[in-house]
Amino acid sequence: MRGWEFTTTNEPLKLVEKPDPQATEGRVLIEVKAAGLCHSDVGALRDEKWLNIIEHTPIIMGHEVAGVIKEVGPGVTDYKVGDRVGVCPVSKVGMGPGYGYDGGYADLVSAPAVDLVPMPEGITFAQAAAGTDAGMTSYHAMFQTGGAKPGMKVGVIGIGGLGQIAARAAVVQGIDVYAVDVSPKARELAKELGVKEVFEDVKELADIAPDLIVDYAGFGTTTSGAIDVIAPGGTVVLVGMGKLESTINTDPLILKAATLKGSVGGDGHDIAEVYKLMASGDIDPTITEITFDEIWEGILKLERHEVTGRLVAIMD
Amino acid sequence: MRGWEFTTTNEPLKLVEKPDPQATEGRVLIEVKAAGLCHSDVGALRDEKWLNIIEHTPIIMGHEVAGVIKEVGPGVTDYKVGDRVGVCPVSKVGMGPGYGYDGGYADLVSAPAVDLVPMPEGITFAQAAAGTDAGMTSYHAMFQTGGAKPGMKVGVIGIGGLGQIAARAAVVQGIDVYAVDVSPKARELAKELGVKEVFEDVKELADIAPDLIVDYAGFGTTTSGAIDVIAPGGTVVLVGMGKLESTINTDPLILKAATLKGSVGGDGHDIAEVYKLMASGDIDPTITEITFDEIWEGILKLERHEVTGRLVAIMD
Repeated sequence: MRGWEFTTTNEPLKLVEKPDPQATEGRVLIEVKAAGLCHSDVGALRDEKWLNIIEHTPIIMGHEVAGVIKEVGPGVTDYKVGDRVGVCPVSKVGMGPGYGYDGGYADLVSAPAVDLVPMPEGITFAQAAAGTDAGMTSYHAMFQTGGAKPGMKVGVIGIGGLGQIAARAAVVQGIDVYAVDVSPKARELAKELGVKEVFEDVKELADIAPDLIVDYAGFGTTTSGAIDVIAPGGTVVLVGMGKLESTINTDPLILKAATLKGSVGGDGHDIAEVYKLMASGDIDPTITEITFDEIWEGILKLERHEVTGRLVAIMD
Repeated sequence: MRGWEFTTTNEPLKLVEKPDPQATEGRVLIEVKAAGLCHSDVGALRDEKWLNIIEHTPIIMGHEVAGVIKEVGPGVTDYKVGDRVGVCPVSKVGMGPGYGYDGGYADLVSAPAVDLVPMPEGITFAQAAAGTDAGMTSYHAMFQTGGAKPGMKVGVIGIGGLGQIAARAAVVQGIDVYAVDVSPKARELAKELGVKEVFEDVKELADIAPDLIVDYAGFGTTTSGAIDVIAPGGTVVLVGMGKLESTINTDPLILKAATLKGSVGGDGHDIAEVYKLMASGDIDPTITEITFDEIWEGILKLERHEVTGRLVAIMD
C-alpha cells in the first residue's frame, strides 16, 4: 500500500510503498476513504518533544480516519466486512492511529475493533473523519467534562472549529447557550447556530451567571473572566490553549465553591454523538477536500494558516 | 440574658442585657457553654462589606457555639432537654448564628434543630465549639470537595489551624499524606501527625504526583505549583485565601484533565466526623480558653495575632 510516512522532526512526510497491514487478533483492516489533517500533525513535525510521544518511527501519520472494513481479524464479532466506520484517535489499547500505529494517510489501516465508531446513514466519509478529533474533543468538553444538560445556562467562549460544534450540539438539546467571541463574524455564526445571546467579552455574562462555561479559546483572560462570572457551584471547563497561563482570582473560586476543569480528548461515545448530529444535519462543519497526493502540501497549508474549515484528504 | 452585640463597622462589641430568646417552631433553646472566637469576627468588625452579609443589626456575634439544650420548641423531635450539641455555622434555613440570628457570645441561643450536631461522649464544650467552623471547613475541603479516600496519595499545603485537622483526619483513615509548609515548626508538627513525608515547597511533590492536593494556604504559587505536580485526572482543592490571585499554567491543567475546585464552609456531617475524631483523641487542636467577660478583649487579641491555637470563651 501507499502511505505518507513521518521519519523525524522537520523532515517532510515521505510517500512510501509498504506491505499491507494485517487484520490481526482483535483488529480490522480498513480501506481508508477519508483522512482529516490536523494542526497536531504540524506540531508533531516541528516540535521534537513529539519524538517522545510517537511510539516508533518511521510511522504513517493521520489520526482522523474513516473508511470501510475490508477484513475482520480473529475475535472481532461486533463488525463485518463492508461496515462504514470512524476510528477513535484516543485508543483504548495504547496510542492511536498516526502516533501508535500506521495511520490514515494511507490506503489501508489496521485498527483495534474496540476503537471503532459505526457511521450512521447520511454522513459522508469526510464528515466522519472530521468528526473523530475536533468533534470528539469539543463534545467531550461540553457534555462529559462539563456535564451540560437542558435547564442549565451555558457559556461558550470561542466559536471556532471546536466551539461551534459544542455550541450547536447544546442548542439542539434545548440548552440556553450564551456565546462569547471577539470576532464579529464568529458572533454572527453563533447567532445562526441558534444561541440565546452573543457577547464580545466573557465579563458581560456577569448578570447571566452561567452554570457552566466552556472555554474553547483559552486566552488566559477568557478563563479568569469565566471564573469571575460563573454561578455559585458552577464549572468552568478549559479546552483551548491560546495562551498557556491564566491569572485567576481565587476569592470567587473559593467563595462560590466553583470548579475549573481541564479537558482533553474524548472517547468513542463522544464521536457517536457527533455522528448523530451530523446525520440529522444539525452539525455540518466546513470541510475543504484534497486528494491523497496533496497530503504533504495540505499540511504545509495548515502550517501557513491558509485553510478554512477542516482539511480532509479523500482517497482515490 | 447577657450578650456581646455588634452594632456597626469599627464599633466595639457592646455588652448588653436583652430578653431571653425563645424556642419557637423547629428551634431549640441552648444554654451556651462555649463559644469560639474566629478571625471572621475581626473581618466583620472592620470591613463594611459585612454589613451586606449580616442580616440585621444590632446582633449578638459568635458563630462557633456549643452547649446544652434547655428547651425544645414545637415540632422538634430529634432532640431533648439536656442534650449536648454544637451548632453548624452554615445553616440549612438561612444565615447562621452571629450573622443571621443572635449567636454564641451570649448566655442563650435559639438555634434551628436541623443545624444541630450531637456531641459524642468524651469531647469538651470547648472542643465542640472549635470543631464547628475550622474543623468543618477543613474536613469538608479534604473529604467532601476533595473526595479523599484510602489508597490515594494526598498533598496538604499549610499545616496551620485548618490544614492540621484534615492532615490528621486523612492519616487516621490510612491515607498517604504529604505535607507542605514553609515553616520548619509546621513541618515538625506534620511529622507528629503521622504524615508520610514533609516538604518546604509543593514543587517537590513532582515525583510523587498526588491524586489530590488541598491548599489550605492559598498563596498563589501554592495553587499553581499544585496544578503543576498533580497526577493526571487529579484534583486540587483551594481553601486558603493567603493571596487572592494565582497565575496558573493551563497546559498541565488541560493535558492532565485536572480539576481545581474552590471549597468553602461545610455541613453538619463534616462537624460530626470532626467530633468523632476529637472523641477518639485523634484530633486535639490547641485551644486557649477565656471567660465570657473577656470576649471583646479576645477579638482584639485575634486582630493583633496574639493568639496561639483556637480562642474559645467558656461561659460562667
